[in-house]
Amino acid sequence: MSRIVYVNGEYLPETEAKVSIFDRGFLFADGVYEVTSVLGGKLIDFDGHARRLERSLGELDMTPPIGRDALLEVHRQLVARNGLEEGMIYLQITRGAPADRDFAFPSEEVPGTVVLFPQAKTLTGPEIAAKGWRIVTVDDLRWGRRDIKTVQLLYPSMGKMAAKAAGADDAWMVEDGHVTEGTSNNAYIVKDGKIVTRHLGTEILHGITRAAVLRFAAEAQMKVEERAFTVEEAQAADEAFVTSASSFVMPVVEIDGVVLGDGTPGPIAMRLREIYIDESRKVAL
Amino acid sequence: MSRIVYVNGEYLPETEAKVSIFDRGFLFADGVYEVTSVLGGKLIDFDGHARRLERSLGELDMTPPIGRDALLEVHRQLVARNGLEEGMIYLQITRGAPADRDFAFPSEEVPGTVVLFPQAKTLTGPEIAAKGWRIVTVDDLRWGRRDIKTVQLLYPSMGKMAAKAAGADDAWMVEDGHVTEGTSNNAYIVKDGKIVTRHLGTEILHGITRAAVLRFAAEAQMKVEERAFTVEEAQAADEAFVTSASSFVMPVVEIDGVVLGDGTPGPIAMRLREIYIDESRKVAL
Repeated sequence: MSRIVYVNGEYLPETEAKVSIFDRGFLFADGVYEVTSVLGGKLIDFDGHARRLERSLGELDMTPPIGRDALLEVHRQLVARNGLEEGMIYLQITRGAPADRDFAFPSEEVPGTVVLFPQAKTLTGPEIAAKGWRIVTVDDLRWGRRDIKTVQLLYPSMGKMAAKAAGADDAWMVEDGHVTEGTSNNAYIVKDGKIVTRHLGTEILHGITRAAVLRFAAEAQMKVEERAFTVEEAQAADEAFVTSASSFVMPVVEIDGVVLGDGTPGPIAMRLREIYIDESRKVAL
Repeated sequence: MSRIVYVNGEYLPETEAKVSIFDRGFLFADGVYEVTSVLGGKLIDFDGHARRLERSLGELDMTPPIGRDALLEVHRQLVARNGLEEGMIYLQITRGAPADRDFAFPSEEVPGTVVLFPQAKTLTGPEIAAKGWRIVTVDDLRWGRRDIKTVQLLYPSMGKMAAKAAGADDAWMVEDGHVTEGTSNNAYIVKDGKIVTRHLGTEILHGITRAAVLRFAAEAQMKVEERAFTVEEAQAADEAFVTSASSFVMPVVEIDGVVLGDGTPGPIAMRLREIYIDESRKVAL
């Protein structure tokens, strides 16, 4: 069945959902995005995503073409119109479609483009995290402002393909000997009961799920250290995991062919996954 | 008057020219492009651009959705249908629009998206290069594979805006103390009669105009050195210039507020501009 999606104020069948070839999202990757998960037909951490979206737009001097309340309403409409029980709502805002191609930003009069669509996906259940992910590492060749959630996602896509080619599930990016993050998730290791994840900065995305998981970890009296770690340190860890809006907390069981612990999802990762899903459901909108 | 543009096999009025919101060019910046100049209704260095396009596609494991001969025909059709005498033909190829968003590349069965459109612009004449460009420098924060001509152009756009904000014409990017290139052009300085421009590598685009200009410079017995240069070295140069498909050879008269020479376009830049335009016209298709 064809999905109903949203493009610039209109709800449309996905086959009719199009943007101009002059859209700066298409010509210049001049756009930002967010992915909000849906559990039981409700939005997980919508406010966190809306706040980060506003920050991304601000960092790029992009005028928000739609307000937070209206955005929430579109998310809810897409959930309702598509009968979405579990999955994600994808949102993208670009600097719009001026009359012609020009590196310089168009005038404020050119409205930004707003696109949202739903993706149904099984996100919970015992089978999802049962095996854990196998990771390969790749050099981090992305641009220098990874804290802005732009659609410049070609290199993460290439990383995903490198992982697939190696029979793995995802790639961790490595810069100056240290892991930055996964292709679309933040990276963590656990050693002697302590969780280590990279500190915030321009080198990584400031994950909404990361913030929530670190809060839950603190509330559960787990030790957390925010600093960069090496691949060797990760391979010597007791366990590892990643977090993202759609994978929540996903255990990692292997890094560049080195099996962690007994090769099954670690107890801290699984406990955090359970807490995150339980707590998120409680406050879902 | 509305232009006629080309989208996936169809010639359309520009207002009807659209791509799916699921196009990977829009969602992942998973696309490459070329800009070919038109002088006197003929294409400048089409073969060079076609060759580089094929290389870009190859580096990204993208199957060419259209062959070189068919591409030439589309370029010519757009020139003819739009009565284009002087300007550019813009070409973009993306990895197409699979049924849903996924970082992993879609199967080979998903055809790539092919978009071309004309842009009328005055490229020649005494007034174009009469004043020369004023340049500011910015940190080069782009990704690590600038030799692939992808549409990840947000940072170059930001550089262009930084230049505008400073009352300048363009920005040169600086990495590890050395100039890489301009926002959409290669950078050169001239000192004691010797032309210096950065050597090829993954740090810069392998300019089609760059290759032609260096060839013409050698034929004119000019000395050329291909190596990285610093901003300080550029500010102490006798003259400077940039090259690109649409600006040809454009003199630079000021760098970060420091005026070069007497502040007017230098003789070597102007001579190369003249040679480039004359020679290119002779072999235009």
